Amino acid sequence: MKVGGVSRTTIWVADDGATVEIIDQTELPHEFVVRPLRSLADAVEAIAVMRVRGAPLIGATAAYGVCLQMRLDPGDASLDSACEALRATRPTAVNLEWALARMRAALSERPPAERCAVAYAEAAAIRDEDAETCRSIGEHGVALIEAASERVGGRAVNVLTHCNAGWLATVDWGTALAPIYRAHDRGIAVHVWVDETRPRNQGANLTAWELREHGVPHTLIADNAAGHLMQRGRVDLCITGSDRTTARGDVCNKIGTYTKALSAWDNRVPFYVALPHSSIDWERVDGVAEIPIEERHGDELRRIRGLAASGAMEEVQLVPESTPVANFAFDVTPARLITALVTERGVCAATKEGLLSLYPERR
Amino acid sequence: MKVGGVSRTTIWVADDGATVEIIDQTELPHEFVVRPLRSLADAVEAIAVMRVRGAPLIGATAAYGVCLQMRLDPGDASLDSACEALRATRPTAVNLEWALARMRAALSERPPAERCAVAYAEAAAIRDEDAETCRSIGEHGVALIEAASERVGGRAVNVLTHCNAGWLATVDWGTALAPIYRAHDRGIAVHVWVDETRPRNQGANLTAWELREHGVPHTLIADNAAGHLMQRGRVDLCITGSDRTTARGDVCNKIGTYTKALSAWDNRVPFYVALPHSSIDWERVDGVAEIPIEERHGDELRRIRGLAASGAMEEVQLVPESTPVANFAFDVTPARLITALVTERGVCAATKEGLLSLYPERR
Repeated sequence: MKVGGVSRTTIWVADDGATVEIIDQTELPHEFVVRPLRSLADAVEAIAVMRVRGAPLIGATAAYGVCLQMRLDPGDASLDSACEALRATRPTAVNLEWALARMRAALSERPPAERCAVAYAEAAAIRDEDAETCRSIGEHGVALIEAASERVGGRAVNVLTHCNAGWLATVDWGTALAPIYRAHDRGIAVHVWVDETRPRNQGANLTAWELREHGVPHTLIADNAAGHLMQRGRVDLCITGSDRTTARGDVCNKIGTYTKALSAWDNRVPFYVALPHSSIDWERVDGVAEIPIEERHGDELRRIRGLAASGAMEEVQLVPESTPVANFAFDVTPARLITALVTERGVCAATKEGLLSLYPERR
Repeated sequence: MKVGGVSRTTIWVADDGATVEIIDQTELPHEFVVRPLRSLADAVEAIAVMRVRGAPLIGATAAYGVCLQMRLDPGDASLDSACEALRATRPTAVNLEWALARMRAALSERPPAERCAVAYAEAAAIRDEDAETCRSIGEHGVALIEAASERVGGRAVNVLTHCNAGWLATVDWGTALAPIYRAHDRGIAVHVWVDETRPRNQGANLTAWELREHGVPHTLIADNAAGHLMQRGRVDLCITGSDRTTARGDVCNKIGTYTKALSAWDNRVPFYVALPHSSIDWERVDGVAEIPIEERHGDELRRIRGLAASGAMEEVQLVPESTPVANFAFDVTPARLITALVTERGVCAATKEGLLSLYPERR
């Protein structure tokens, strides 16, 4: 997608063929900083402090972390310790373990002398496949926006999204935003309502930024405003991503997704969820009963970072340290509230049969 | 209610019998500052920059603003211009006009020499009646919490509230929080989930502070988390205030109230609204169709104030000035989602008949 008119992805290999470069997402939306990763330690740090985030991008970064270590020392012990260090950064991200297992499978039977080259090739494959998966989600999802555009007689289609499921969460295109970018690029008029997404403000910091850079019209709102907008007919459809999707189509996603889906349901606004197959958890059925919800540190609500009058980034305290805070990172939207799921294979009902129609090999 | 163990109200006359004192709410929760109002200009400024807010407290402050001007100059022109200056501070607050009309009615037929004493007496009456109205709301509403306490077998009743409808919004007791204070003071175990209430964070800044000072257990949450908590059975009932209630029981209140009510409805959690009779708009019926919703400046989302590392309050920029923002201050919760209304006269269904049963003089 575009940044300042230039096509970008979130992670790539520099011209020297060895250094890995990322967009440092902790500096957004105030500064666009490209950060080189020159060692395993750099990659570990980038994932741990969330310079990169979003399950697909974490997976790709971990794969390149293995590459950086293989350049230095392609031995077995080095491979083991690299995978262990990367795995420990974000223990809950499904794609992280998947990417590391894939790197290990590609490398472990090879002689050390070949491992560096093989690692870069495998990491590039992971990277390219992710971009292709997201591109396909966009291709399937754009039909939903096209249909809405026809329904509303060609005025801009108002789409509401929550959190950041854009290209910054993946290698390129994104999941929820992929159909929006595709529509925009095809000349279909689209306007996006961007939920701020407290407490980490991914909507304000990342989604609004990436839409602006790509030229997609958008408006930032407080999370509290989504219901009001739907009640007043100002939202034509909602699209979010998914962190984990159960076999019957329950969706575990960023906290607040459930209340947006309720607002959509109460106002007959279609509510779509876009996801790659890798987010489907075929072992779980009832999302509310079976998915444990991560609780994060209360300081995410108590403190916030922004640009101070001095021009430096500064963290300010919003409420006293002593204020008791509960900070749930995700919630579960029951399948009954979801109009359809969009994956790289197509659009389906949020039901067991719907998912199996796209993934018959899971029958 | 209590602050640091001392009983307080939000506005009072100082020992000199003339100066009016308020709690400066713009300094909360970081500092407790009592601010003297010595002139009409001080009162106008306090309302305009929201050192005092909440419709009932705005009304009481406006009444005392008239007193301060009557001390200086009790003439007709002075009375007229004082009322005009106060009215212009917050043009949408219903209680402001009501309080000024009442002051004018009490003063205009009196000779100027008597006006100062009459003004202080009338302002005191407005102040005391508001406290009594809120005390009655608490008295009627506490039965709902007592019933919930019996249902949950005596463990702490988990109550969710949105925005600040506590004593800081009134003279004392509050509206939504009055039943909670009453229950707590009677020894009924209560725990309050406090919505942060973006974008102005009244929950974090005011509700959490006043509950802490009075010793009521509470936990701050992101607005996005309310649905999740209800889905997991961790909320026994919700209580909010109301800025305007239609004749059939639709409630216009702080943005986000509607989505909390939807979450309660989806999870069979009782949703109560506490309000004084002065918030009932008998002229309007359909809240969504008939109540215009105030849009406020986008900087309320773009910027935020907090305590910097230096120890000073500092405002930081969260998103660039150029980010398009829509900032709706209120939304409408349809009566169908409201379990009951609580007023100073009792508890009733959120219907036309329900309201008329408490206010038969409106038939």
